[in-house]
Amino acid sequence: MPRSKIARFAASAFLAAASGFVIAAFAPNTIRADEGMWTLDNPPSKILQERYGFAPTKEWLERIQHGCVNFGGGSGSFVSPNGLVLTNHHVALNQLQKMSTAEHNYVRDGFFAKTGSEEMPCPDLELKVLQSMDEVTKQVLAAVDPRATIAVQSSQRKAAMARLETEASQSTGLKCEVIELYHGAEYWLYRYKKYNDVRLVMAPEEQIAFYGGDPDNFSYPRHDLDMAFFRVYENGRPVHPDSWFRLSDAGPSENELVFVAGHPGATSRLKTVSQLEYERDCLRPTRITQQESRLKAIRAYAAESPENTRRAVDRDRGIENNLKRERAFLEILKDGPLLAQKRDAESALRARVAKDPKIAADCSGSWDKIASAEKELRGRYKQRLYRDLDRSARLVNLAENIVRYTAEVQKPNEKRFREYRDSNLPTMKFQIYSKAPVFPDLDAVILANSLEQARATLGPNDPWVKQALGGKEPMDVAKSLTQGTRIGDPTVRKQLMEGGAEAIAASADPMIVWVRGLDPIYRELRTWYEDHVETVESLEGGRIARARFALDGHSTYPDATGSLRLSPGKVAGYKQLTTDVPWKTTWFGLFDRSTSFDGRHPYDIPARVAAARGKLDLAGPLNFVCTTDIIGGNSGSPVLGKDLSLVGLIFDGNVQAFGWEFAYDDAQGRAVAVSSAAILQSLRKIYDMNNLADELQSGRTASVPATSADASGSAH
Amino acid sequence: MPRSKIARFAASAFLAAASGFVIAAFAPNTIRADEGMWTLDNPPSKILQERYGFAPTKEWLERIQHGCVNFGGGSGSFVSPNGLVLTNHHVALNQLQKMSTAEHNYVRDGFFAKTGSEEMPCPDLELKVLQSMDEVTKQVLAAVDPRATIAVQSSQRKAAMARLETEASQSTGLKCEVIELYHGAEYWLYRYKKYNDVRLVMAPEEQIAFYGGDPDNFSYPRHDLDMAFFRVYENGRPVHPDSWFRLSDAGPSENELVFVAGHPGATSRLKTVSQLEYERDCLRPTRITQQESRLKAIRAYAAESPENTRRAVDRDRGIENNLKRERAFLEILKDGPLLAQKRDAESALRARVAKDPKIAADCSGSWDKIASAEKELRGRYKQRLYRDLDRSARLVNLAENIVRYTAEVQKPNEKRFREYRDSNLPTMKFQIYSKAPVFPDLDAVILANSLEQARATLGPNDPWVKQALGGKEPMDVAKSLTQGTRIGDPTVRKQLMEGGAEAIAASADPMIVWVRGLDPIYRELRTWYEDHVETVESLEGGRIARARFALDGHSTYPDATGSLRLSPGKVAGYKQLTTDVPWKTTWFGLFDRSTSFDGRHPYDIPARVAAARGKLDLAGPLNFVCTTDIIGGNSGSPVLGKDLSLVGLIFDGNVQAFGWEFAYDDAQGRAVAVSSAAILQSLRKIYDMNNLADELQSGRTASVPATSADASGSAH
Repeated sequence: MPRSKIARFAASAFLAAASGFVIAAFAPNTIRADEGMWTLDNPPSKILQERYGFAPTKEWLERIQHGCVNFGGGSGSFVSPNGLVLTNHHVALNQLQKMSTAEHNYVRDGFFAKTGSEEMPCPDLELKVLQSMDEVTKQVLAAVDPRATIAVQSSQRKAAMARLETEASQSTGLKCEVIELYHGAEYWLYRYKKYNDVRLVMAPEEQIAFYGGDPDNFSYPRHDLDMAFFRVYENGRPVHPDSWFRLSDAGPSENELVFVAGHPGATSRLKTVSQLEYERDCLRPTRITQQESRLKAIRAYAAESPENTRRAVDRDRGIENNLKRERAFLEILKDGPLLAQKRDAESALRARVAKDPKIAADCSGSWDKIASAEKELRGRYKQRLYRDLDRSARLVNLAENIVRYTAEVQKPNEKRFREYRDSNLPTMKFQIYSKAPVFPDLDAVILANSLEQARATLGPNDPWVKQALGGKEPMDVAKSLTQGTRIGDPTVRKQLMEGGAEAIAASADPMIVWVRGLDPIYRELRTWYEDHVETVESLEGGRIARARFALDGHSTYPDATGSLRLSPGKVAGYKQLTTDVPWKTTWFGLFDRSTSFDGRHPYDIPARVAAARGKLDLAGPLNFVCTTDIIGGNSGSPVLGKDLSLVGLIFDGNVQAFGWEFAYDDAQGRAVAVSSAAILQSLRKIYDMNNLADELQSGRTASVPATSADASGSAH
Repeated sequence: MPRSKIARFAASAFLAAASGFVIAAFAPNTIRADEGMWTLDNPPSKILQERYGFAPTKEWLERIQHGCVNFGGGSGSFVSPNGLVLTNHHVALNQLQKMSTAEHNYVRDGFFAKTGSEEMPCPDLELKVLQSMDEVTKQVLAAVDPRATIAVQSSQRKAAMARLETEASQSTGLKCEVIELYHGAEYWLYRYKKYNDVRLVMAPEEQIAFYGGDPDNFSYPRHDLDMAFFRVYENGRPVHPDSWFRLSDAGPSENELVFVAGHPGATSRLKTVSQLEYERDCLRPTRITQQESRLKAIRAYAAESPENTRRAVDRDRGIENNLKRERAFLEILKDGPLLAQKRDAESALRARVAKDPKIAADCSGSWDKIASAEKELRGRYKQRLYRDLDRSARLVNLAENIVRYTAEVQKPNEKRFREYRDSNLPTMKFQIYSKAPVFPDLDAVILANSLEQARATLGPNDPWVKQALGGKEPMDVAKSLTQGTRIGDPTVRKQLMEGGAEAIAASADPMIVWVRGLDPIYRELRTWYEDHVETVESLEGGRIARARFALDGHSTYPDATGSLRLSPGKVAGYKQLTTDVPWKTTWFGLFDRSTSFDGRHPYDIPARVAAARGKLDLAGPLNFVCTTDIIGGNSGSPVLGKDLSLVGLIFDGNVQAFGWEFAYDDAQGRAVAVSSAAILQSLRKIYDMNNLADELQSGRTASVPATSADASGSAH
């Protein structure tokens, strides 16, 4: 019937965005905001004093530094004098998955150690705590001859960094890393204490940790108990950290000044326009395509049985999470005015640089040099992205690490790939020797998918594809490798590692042979990338950042790099559509959301939580939002009050914070956290973990012999 | 400090929209949707059969027709065989306000009649129930000579309508109205039974009826108990309606087919582009300006004392509500692609018309004629909008009605302004004789604001402004009139009405004298408008609509006109941002929203509701959304299941439904309703109104003598 003749119209651009992904349209923002992921050597003291009347002291900053725990891609903090560490369930997920079996599904069912003896060792979790840091910019740059070729400069730079790391490691016994900040304008030596004996204490059921599933992921209002507790041991005893944060009984108040301290992974805020255009045209679209295909393959595998579902759950969630982010990033880069505004800002900076002969002499050509590097990269990015095997296929990843480890250690430290430098070898070994289970059938699915995508994109005549497939079908290759290899057995891996390059050369293990065959192609491409792109981005990006310092002073923060950062902000709701979004949610809200969907998945509540409904103070806080500047990697970061009590646990940003990848904005963008009050209430009223709650609230533990319970707590 | 040098960006266009008003960007929509506000003579039977497998019968439609109650700007329905009527609290607000005193604030505190004798008569509430309807297009159009001048055609058209009304009223004793549908393509005679003895039975506290206040208005998820009960009496006894709807115990289910039956007021979906452009450039911006100024004046008055606040509350809410809508409408007209798409649709229709000589002969010039009329209107719209005194200044409104009534009844019925035709005189008298309180101080504020705006916009030399102010200041004129007049006394009004035109001519009452002086200027402008704009829009709009019928058949619905309509749809949530919005909210959600804002206004919960928290089934439904097509005027409409049980009570649309003024879209647009289960639960567990709940559930009443409790219930 002709109802279409009635003028009918679909949703607005805004509504389309609202039903899909964020289409950002950034505009210059002149309001003051709680922007910044500050390094601890350069806290925003002036801003804090002006805006909040608060002045951080050196001692206060040190307490933060020593209380924060680096999870390598995630964050956490000490929350008792007996080595108890709090992080997110989704940061712990990978370990939970590795600790689970077909009989004991700790991901689904949670894990609850009532005594120290029940605490379960993690297979391959290494934690780091930053002990000290020093700037080494001069030392690194002095080693680089700007008149040399880029390849030479690249070697010089890497060699200097390796040298500084080794010297520092040897003199301190700590794990030392030289990191780049401001895209190469500064180099810093960070010294970490490292822990390898980490035991799981408590994790709730995934369904309450990740309540609302993929739809609610990055959403707010939110109702997640995204937490997990580990305990750090040394010499078989719980450690007594130099600093720890006591959980606040009540959680934060509205408008309270809070601090997030953690390890934001990466942002693109200071990148040049040509770098962002590369992301828009090449990197982001490719990642989306790759992950969509990967997710499909993994879901087909998971659908085959409940055990397959269990095995694949962390891969599924990881890809789902990344896809949501990548799609949003691509929308922001493609459809919003972001790039136009970045272009304007870049032109303005270049014009200012041009007016100062001294600054211009150093960096006026830097933008064009980076643009040339990006142009070169466009010619090889598909090789780079499609020849990269998915690390979540563990057998493949193990083989690659073993083959490369044994080859790299043959070379002088200064000439190795970064991850095989002496400073990182213990960590690499720890991972290779992990006793975590391997799932050859799942690895085959992932590997076959990688190979299929590589062949489809690079073509069957690409040297890597040719070598990888040898004329066979991807799934045949993948099955043959994963079924034939013996490196799933840790003792086999140990033999190969100890046998070194000779053992690898002699090995007939099909996976080792296969990786060995691909290795030269890998090395060529990686070296090409480092010499043609990475080094240019770093050297020239460093010049641009130094020009900014020269023009505007040093009162700024670097793009996120996974190093420890401090983000101040306040606890505050926001306006959305035409109404108010509250600063916190309550347990009432959890039960509302579940009953509003008639309890259907992913809005179902685990039996244990539902059963506690009558006991819970439903008006108590559950999650809250704050303006603190975060990004992926901040997951598990403590939210601290001025007195360094822990009021919350960061676990997400809302969709309006997707744009923070490129520029901070607090109109609606928010970090999302679990309230400390919710953590305590759940331990006491849902999980019968009163000992753990007591330890968090008193700083003492009944379950672990408290050898120095009165010592060194920093949150008193 | 130079933090602004860090590239920083404000919210996206989408986020800006999300924090302000809806910026719509309509695009052609080809999905099937539950569009349409159908007249009961032309239900969408084919669609219903195809989509839902449901065929409405004649008897089913009659039950709806006789169960629905017209509130004149609002909707309602019979919900017991003893004349009980359910509508929204905000539809009842005007009566509640008029019934309240400084001592008894029924708006704030609610009203609860436990027995029939406690039911309180409303001062001036007239309800109508549609008895029958017949098309009279031929009779009206036969009376219009298309070769005559527009002024003559206007007279002919109005005369024909008046004649048909009078004939029908005399032959049936009912209140008969001729209405236009499809912008003049059809004329229908609607015959109503009218009720003037309406008594208030129950209304909850405003704070739970309008929970969340202005921020949550038009928002969803929502938590309002926006309900009120009246009982209709005749000859001192409750009436026994021909049809009524029994409240469903449980409310609707997700995806259930439901029907909204009510009185949508006005939509602009079939208007021509020139009409929409007039709205965009003139009507909407002016209304916003006027209302913003009015609201400011009323709030200044209200701030003076709690009693002033009480007196002004309904005006404040009314303007606040309109402003939110008007601002959204303006955004949609200005910033979205709506108009571009309307232009395309109009061009396409004109092209099709041009291809058919017969249709073209009738209407090819219609668009241009309407455009000419709009152009003329642009020359006088400011006079029209600024000389229009705000009816909420009751003393002014009463004086206008009395002066015009006595003048109009001197003329033959056919020549009068529409609202003074014989068919409407009893209603007019009922309102003039209302014993509702008057507040001269509030009226002075409103009148002074109208006069100030008129002088500022039209200038001091505008004839109307000159006459109205007589060289004095607006507030002096307003105070002198409102303090000097005696028409606040109903007996004075009665004397003037009975004295007729002579009494008016002889009156020295300052308000009467003042209105009398303005009346000729009013009459000139109104007649000009009717002859130059209204009649053109109707005659030519009718031709365009008939062209549509000729090309596409009659399977469509007319723009809303306040007449009874049926809107089918389904109970369904939607996607927003990247997550799911549930189809219903629960009582858990109410307590969550309140505690999430730490109970601050407008998120506070009335004491009585809070006290019942332990008794309530918190998992029970509170509000829900459905795709049924509604607009302002539908407030109070029943949401009916296929079996005609009442599952909900419409009280709002969400912000994504603002665009429904111009085009329906169900991607996110939704009608918002109170669940019948929430109504019943609140009566029993919060308000101790078990008798009322029993009456709703059983169809019997203990509080009113049930003279025919077994009779004529239609929802059995």
